[in-house]
Amino acid sequence: MRILGFESSAKSASVAICDENGLISQYFQNSGLTHSRTLLPMAEDMLKNLDMSLSDIDLIAVAHGPGSFTGVRIGVSAVKGLAWGSGKPVCGVSTLLAMAYNGVSAPEGSIICCVMDARREQFYNALFVMRGGIPVRLCEDRAIGTAKLVEDIENQKKPVFIVGDGARLCYNTLNNFEVRTILAPEPMLYQSAWGVCMAAQREPAQSVHELLPVYLRLSQAERERQERIFGR
Amino acid sequence: MRILGFESSAKSASVAICDENGLISQYFQNSGLTHSRTLLPMAEDMLKNLDMSLSDIDLIAVAHGPGSFTGVRIGVSAVKGLAWGSGKPVCGVSTLLAMAYNGVSAPEGSIICCVMDARREQFYNALFVMRGGIPVRLCEDRAIGTAKLVEDIENQKKPVFIVGDGARLCYNTLNNFEVRTILAPEPMLYQSAWGVCMAAQREPAQSVHELLPVYLRLSQAERERQERIFGR
Repeated sequence: MRILGFESSAKSASVAICDENGLISQYFQNSGLTHSRTLLPMAEDMLKNLDMSLSDIDLIAVAHGPGSFTGVRIGVSAVKGLAWGSGKPVCGVSTLLAMAYNGVSAPEGSIICCVMDARREQFYNALFVMRGGIPVRLCEDRAIGTAKLVEDIENQKKPVFIVGDGARLCYNTLNNFEVRTILAPEPMLYQSAWGVCMAAQREPAQSVHELLPVYLRLSQAERERQERIFGR
Repeated sequence: MRILGFESSAKSASVAICDENGLISQYFQNSGLTHSRTLLPMAEDMLKNLDMSLSDIDLIAVAHGPGSFTGVRIGVSAVKGLAWGSGKPVCGVSTLLAMAYNGVSAPEGSIICCVMDARREQFYNALFVMRGGIPVRLCEDRAIGTAKLVEDIENQKKPVFIVGDGARLCYNTLNNFEVRTILAPEPMLYQSAWGVCMAAQREPAQSVHELLPVYLRLSQAERERQERIFGR
């Protein structure tokens, strides 16, 4: 099964094509340019350079969140458009599950702590344990504060690897609380479309109508509106 | 310093741009298409998608070998052409040193065993030790047989991580000799242009005339010619 994967949940963006033999191509960018301008051209360039078109793709996968509201919307919208136009099935996967695949170099039984900076003193986070080279979920995706994260990591008996675009912040924060973890190296730090493809291999396909962004929290605009209407 | 790096020493090919803050963009392809057709378009697409041109690049780096004779020639020739045309300095780095950066996730003091399948029952190989997140060379690049590699790895007191396009073959071969090593995970397995940029940060720049392929062995055509002329 040939999967075209999209990842645009934070500052970096990437597009990848994988099949059962592994990675065929990945195009990664961490340039600060807006994903709405770079994401679809990356996919188009990649398919062209591979002598492929959408008709050679069996499934279109995307990191459906949590993450940057704008980034998640761009990724999900782009994939909805591609799938609508081509009639291909889609698969929305958790951004945090996809980035857990960055921990596949960690020894069996290691804990993979996936973190994104959710602002407002919170992290988007989920914990996984490596079993047979696959990250197995230990908790649901969540938006949590530092105190809860410190408590959860302190209780782990195994080495904890930190991945994700919030990894450096989380690593330093935990270090300040004298909780020792291992920061993933630069090339395995950021979420990637490769991880999206890997996660999508083990998730059910959806119709284009079922694919929705997963934000975990209200957007700033929605929050401020509720505060205006209902008070704090 | 903004570095544009090329890697085309084996079946996969990649192009990357890095600066002192890390990876800006990488375009990786393991499709089996010829590098002479894919390598320069990948660089061109990437620069365009980043709103950059060659004038935004300070140094052009390339994996100068060892590796596939054709692949190395394509990479070195492409970089010579780009540097000649743009007047940019170049930097040829060892393919094996560049791939050693794939081992940066390995713990301090680990051995990184870089291997490419050199055919004729040999590996292109070099060994490195991780010191402060940087691979430090333990031996020169070489083409060696299985017996010598088994002996060298057996003598290591530290965990040995195997990286490179010959990693699976090497890992299985060593396993057959009951020498236990750790195979790098899929996304860190193959040589990459990111590694070329990382290695080039610590190597001296060259003029375009100084950049030459490094083959380590005679090509099949040269070998057969010598055999015809001089006998075995």
